[in-house]
Amino acid sequence: MSRIVQKYGGTSVGDVERIKKVAARIKGYRDEGHDVVVVVSARSGVTNELIARAKAVCEHPDEREMDQLLAIGEQETIALTAMALHGLGVPAVSYTGAQAGIVTDKVHTKAKIQGINAKPIEADLKAGKVVIVAGFQGITDDGRVSTLGRGGSDLTAIALAGALHADKCEIYTDVDGVYTADPRVVKDAKKLQEISYDEMLELASSGSKVMQSRSVEFAAKYDVVFEVRSSFNYNPGTIVKQEVAYMEKVVVRGVAVDKDQAKVTITNIPDQPGSAAKIFKGLADASIIVDMIVQNVGRNGVANLSFTVPGTETHKARKALEPVFAALGGGEVEIDEAIAKLSVVGVGMKTHSGVAATLFSALAEAGVNIQLISTSEIKISVLIDKAKADDAARVAHKAFALESL
Amino acid sequence: MSRIVQKYGGTSVGDVERIKKVAARIKGYRDEGHDVVVVVSARSGVTNELIARAKAVCEHPDEREMDQLLAIGEQETIALTAMALHGLGVPAVSYTGAQAGIVTDKVHTKAKIQGINAKPIEADLKAGKVVIVAGFQGITDDGRVSTLGRGGSDLTAIALAGALHADKCEIYTDVDGVYTADPRVVKDAKKLQEISYDEMLELASSGSKVMQSRSVEFAAKYDVVFEVRSSFNYNPGTIVKQEVAYMEKVVVRGVAVDKDQAKVTITNIPDQPGSAAKIFKGLADASIIVDMIVQNVGRNGVANLSFTVPGTETHKARKALEPVFAALGGGEVEIDEAIAKLSVVGVGMKTHSGVAATLFSALAEAGVNIQLISTSEIKISVLIDKAKADDAARVAHKAFALESL
Repeated sequence: MSRIVQKYGGTSVGDVERIKKVAARIKGYRDEGHDVVVVVSARSGVTNELIARAKAVCEHPDEREMDQLLAIGEQETIALTAMALHGLGVPAVSYTGAQAGIVTDKVHTKAKIQGINAKPIEADLKAGKVVIVAGFQGITDDGRVSTLGRGGSDLTAIALAGALHADKCEIYTDVDGVYTADPRVVKDAKKLQEISYDEMLELASSGSKVMQSRSVEFAAKYDVVFEVRSSFNYNPGTIVKQEVAYMEKVVVRGVAVDKDQAKVTITNIPDQPGSAAKIFKGLADASIIVDMIVQNVGRNGVANLSFTVPGTETHKARKALEPVFAALGGGEVEIDEAIAKLSVVGVGMKTHSGVAATLFSALAEAGVNIQLISTSEIKISVLIDKAKADDAARVAHKAFALESL
Repeated sequence: MSRIVQKYGGTSVGDVERIKKVAARIKGYRDEGHDVVVVVSARSGVTNELIARAKAVCEHPDEREMDQLLAIGEQETIALTAMALHGLGVPAVSYTGAQAGIVTDKVHTKAKIQGINAKPIEADLKAGKVVIVAGFQGITDDGRVSTLGRGGSDLTAIALAGALHADKCEIYTDVDGVYTADPRVVKDAKKLQEISYDEMLELASSGSKVMQSRSVEFAAKYDVVFEVRSSFNYNPGTIVKQEVAYMEKVVVRGVAVDKDQAKVTITNIPDQPGSAAKIFKGLADASIIVDMIVQNVGRNGVANLSFTVPGTETHKARKALEPVFAALGGGEVEIDEAIAKLSVVGVGMKTHSGVAATLFSALAEAGVNIQLISTSEIKISVLIDKAKADDAARVAHKAFALESL
């Protein structure tokens, strides 16, 4: 008998029928004798509906009120999930974030969890009940509802698993686990049995959409081991945990492709000290996340600069740069959206050289041109032509023999 | 400058456009310098949708979880109303029942308010904010969400007006106020400027659907004066308050017709002591509300009994009586749904005789046959043919000269 925290996302509880299926699944674990704590998201689509209604009454809704509004999405699914369990004869009780004692800071719409008072949940578990907790939400110390931002329900599950000293934390999603590459693109991609937090983080920031970085960071910080698995079958998923020695024997453990990036090239900037700083300050002030920066040597008193931004932010980036160019006395922007970022990730890279060489020559042989390069301790990313991205993923996957992992 | 509590029902906040209109109305009162506390219901239809979803996951949903679910209806409207006020440049903050410190007992789905900790609301009023409170809901002392049952938002407004020592409590609805009769039936019905709690209660229980009895009872108990008025215009409504001397000068102040009643006649009951008691105990155990009881003298060892029940409960009544008849060794039921209850109400009746005579002879002249009669200190009700109910209302209205009130 163990204590399990399970998180089911918006698709898994998307309608009444799916909620009943999730309840049946939960009952199965409880029938095996486990203590089960379940975190659920809002039904898929509900949060967007609520945001649309908020924007219809007020152009720029207040974030405190937005949280008060958005929290109802999960409050609906916790009650319905508890009722569905009752319908199967399983004692269950629902908790909003506030009732679950999930205290956050006051940064509404993207609050950070500060602590969890797990006593009421402990009592209900002891009384033999399945506990259903609203994901994504908490309460500030002045009693206001807060929400945790994108991927917040994963965060709730991981934080609860930590606070409740759970034996297992299972993040249910619509994929079977973490693969060496996207199985829709690379046919012989393998599901990883285990992956380190750091690798998972690099994959998350490289376009692998299984989880948001913040949840993985939180798990790493508090050393909460979790499993990513599918709610539509009983296949074992991928366990995400601290790096262990054997992981380093494998140099590369995954290939990720991010097609939602755009390359921004800035030309004709007067080549004077501080130009680049002013440009990036302008972008940072507009909360635009910049990646893969390359500055070319200035010629004839002007410099060139390239970097990537999320594809949805190009318009915002262009607007943010206008006043900077005016202040600098020059500068032009070109935006290329026909690009993709390909990354290879693995903790083994730290101790193995030659990863870059293997990747670059494999891509070269396949006729894939590299536009920008960026590296971290356990990742190499290259910017390439979007049209060649899937081919490149297959080539890289083969170059590191990931199919035989 | 005064402190006003206003309550807007589900129709008034039925969609985004109406919420914006309500916000504009609230702004008007605030611009005049008043402190405004607003209680809102769920958008009309939302509560029924949620109940349907609950029944789809579980045949008999748990009442604690039902409250957790239903409370989201008002949580949506408070946030949207606050946002709509922000859109108009008015500082506003929303409160769920729990946040507003509305503590109730643990009788889920029909909880009673036990107390209100109004300190946080007082602080926000002092800070110049409009306070928006979710109607219909509260919190138990063990932190569970509770709901107050039908008409619960009126109750929230009246309780808050009491706790905040408000100068005014305005219940906005889709009618202009309380009339001497239904203006759709009696063309010269007059709006009453004032009415006593007792009269309002008798009208409420006599089919006048302006408000539920519980809210009026609560107002009477705590002496909270309130006004019933329309959110669609600025006409003065009807003020409901303690009886004052001048009210007694008018003998009858209103005629109400209830067409949603059925007459149950029980025949062939063995005429033995305790038969009637067993019959009414059976009905009470099934939570069926019985009114206008008349027992005929028993003949040949059998007795007859007539009473009224709400029209929706006839099937339940029939089922509840089966085991009683079996135990008594006899009894048959006839149900007549072609009836209506007409009531005349007025605190002046207490000191004036002859009201019954005036009513009965007016009805007789108009050819309306009286089937059952029941009276209270300030009300006379008669059961009549449903087809003649509207005519009878006009006749009674004229007999007491209510058009010249």
